[in-house]
Amino acid sequence: MDYFFSDKISALQPSAIREILKAASDPGVISLAAGNPAPEAFPRAAIAAITAEILERDPVSALQYGISEGYEPLRLAVEAMLKQRYGIGRGFDQVLITSGAQQGIDLATKVLCNEGDVVLCENPSFIGALNTFRSYNVRLRGVDMEEDGLDLGQLEEALRTEKNARFLYLIANFNNPTGRCTSLEKRRAIYALARRRGILILEDNPYGDLRFAGEDIPSLKSFDEDGLVIYAGSFSKIIAPGLRVGFACLPAEIASKMTVAKQGADVHTGALAQMICERFLAGTDLDEHFRRLRDIYRRKSGLMLEAMGASFPPAVTWTKPEGGLFLWCSLPPAADMTAFCRSAAAAGVAVVPGSAFLTQPEDYCRSFRLNFSTPPDESIIRGIELLAGLLR
Amino acid sequence: MDYFFSDKISALQPSAIREILKAASDPGVISLAAGNPAPEAFPRAAIAAITAEILERDPVSALQYGISEGYEPLRLAVEAMLKQRYGIGRGFDQVLITSGAQQGIDLATKVLCNEGDVVLCENPSFIGALNTFRSYNVRLRGVDMEEDGLDLGQLEEALRTEKNARFLYLIANFNNPTGRCTSLEKRRAIYALARRRGILILEDNPYGDLRFAGEDIPSLKSFDEDGLVIYAGSFSKIIAPGLRVGFACLPAEIASKMTVAKQGADVHTGALAQMICERFLAGTDLDEHFRRLRDIYRRKSGLMLEAMGASFPPAVTWTKPEGGLFLWCSLPPAADMTAFCRSAAAAGVAVVPGSAFLTQPEDYCRSFRLNFSTPPDESIIRGIELLAGLLR
Repeated sequence: MDYFFSDKISALQPSAIREILKAASDPGVISLAAGNPAPEAFPRAAIAAITAEILERDPVSALQYGISEGYEPLRLAVEAMLKQRYGIGRGFDQVLITSGAQQGIDLATKVLCNEGDVVLCENPSFIGALNTFRSYNVRLRGVDMEEDGLDLGQLEEALRTEKNARFLYLIANFNNPTGRCTSLEKRRAIYALARRRGILILEDNPYGDLRFAGEDIPSLKSFDEDGLVIYAGSFSKIIAPGLRVGFACLPAEIASKMTVAKQGADVHTGALAQMICERFLAGTDLDEHFRRLRDIYRRKSGLMLEAMGASFPPAVTWTKPEGGLFLWCSLPPAADMTAFCRSAAAAGVAVVPGSAFLTQPEDYCRSFRLNFSTPPDESIIRGIELLAGLLR
Repeated sequence: MDYFFSDKISALQPSAIREILKAASDPGVISLAAGNPAPEAFPRAAIAAITAEILERDPVSALQYGISEGYEPLRLAVEAMLKQRYGIGRGFDQVLITSGAQQGIDLATKVLCNEGDVVLCENPSFIGALNTFRSYNVRLRGVDMEEDGLDLGQLEEALRTEKNARFLYLIANFNNPTGRCTSLEKRRAIYALARRRGILILEDNPYGDLRFAGEDIPSLKSFDEDGLVIYAGSFSKIIAPGLRVGFACLPAEIASKMTVAKQGADVHTGALAQMICERFLAGTDLDEHFRRLRDIYRRKSGLMLEAMGASFPPAVTWTKPEGGLFLWCSLPPAADMTAFCRSAAAAGVAVVPGSAFLTQPEDYCRSFRLNFSTPPDESIIRGIELLAGLLR
């Protein structure tokens, strides 16, 4: 039978990362292409103890239907955490529990955009978010990334010319794929520009707690006195991604629309998983927990950067991130990056071609993304060795 | 700030059930308005034991990111269960794990429908599905329900006149809200009609295993030699809804589009929850487990029906379902059902106004939905007593 598919889905191809991950699942290939947190970062013992206690003491809450907004004690715990640690949340805001930050991005797009509307985003940016936008038949307008965040001139131009721009999507802390961090000055300038133009900001912050160098920078949401910012956070990198629990803090008027959309999407986020996150927050010294995570990622990124510094030719450059999971490596101008990624895979090491992260993937790109969080130490060393051999 | 909302979400109001459930959460009100499985039906001890074992033996699989299609051992277990128990699944089919059957409905709509396209559905039907369709700006064409399923004349007429009808949505086993079951003859006739017109069928089967009287009837998907049927199933009523694990069995070509959409929606369904379902299926005698569930629902529905039979006036009628969670009670012709539901709530018992389940909720309706699975026995008795007092 010939099937009819919607316009919004017909244009969407399986993500390049996903396809590469499938190739990279060949046990003979070293994958520097993933985006998983380090498995040694999962608080396994705490989760096992908490889960046993929940299923002993309150099994019905963990197993029965819950409300779409999320498990009330978790919502309150997230609200308190955001306010106390990050200065996030005003009287007009509301916390909504989502099935990963990914669902926050999906629901925001669904309630804010008609087909043909425009989303502004960092270029390059997280392919998972770009594909969600595309899946609502929204047009992407990329704004190039500089070392310290968006090119403000381009952003101003885009805001001036795009009449149906609904929001600006960004990852201010350790952008995926580049690892770059938006400076405080640019954060303030971006907020002021958005305010002047009356456009919303979708601030995706999965990596903010994984800063292993430098100083924390306030989130754009912490400036938000005007109800402009939808903040999407996640437990994926600070507890465990397999739980699929994220959260959004946003103006209640938008939250109520997203709640209705969430009801139709998956009714609510897994109840046991929400209770695990709530109990974890209640029983954990977060400062100490984050210190442990940061130690892991500092060590692993250091290992990769050191190996690259020792073996990559000088014409190749890369970012030195202060947090997150990724770095961005650029070949010399005019190099054939795609051919390089292909020969890397053939040589036994998978990386993600940078073009996958562009708002226009057909544009020229000489960079690729490297992940240091997922592979074990020996794979980092061996993977960089293989890449260095090809680069020389 | 004035927010812009998409056309698809602006029209969508919070579900009437949800609003009533909020009212019904007043501890002084007896709720016959819910749709939750009986909490005594949850296999609590088995889930606690399984979960402890998973987090002891394979914590990383339970906590790390997984693939969007679902946890491979669970997909294989569902595939085997569907084939062996229900004759479901052909060579062209594929199993996809979803975050509840609700997500299967959501993703199918997203990949199959453009805005303005038409979905045919039983009238009345499950409000959660109707609202999902509405959230994609799809037009609903209702086909009236008779005692034994859809009115075939109306279905033929709808298939003939609706040029952009993309699929027919139905709950053949114990339709929500009526509790009615589509006869084998009608299932065959509906399949044949759909085949002739080349339209897909979305068969939602959350309650099929909860038959407590009569004989099992083969699902429409079990006839499907043509790749016409998308089957949406769920562990919500046979294990526990709080886990949010469902599944779909459907032609691989559609499944691959839904997988891409799922990646953008929530990346994947909770890994721990999927593993719990897989281990439960592997370690449980399902015949015996279903027997236990059916005993619970047979007893609770019997209690409600007996109380109604003993106290409701003869002008009031109701369905006598052979399975599922609901029955459908109708006031005499021309009665003001909405006023009745309102006075019931005031008297301390919540029921769901039948109009909430109509494709056109503004149409006249003299019925309301009663749920017998959620309330404890004494609430069933007392709730029916209160309703009887109002009806006399």
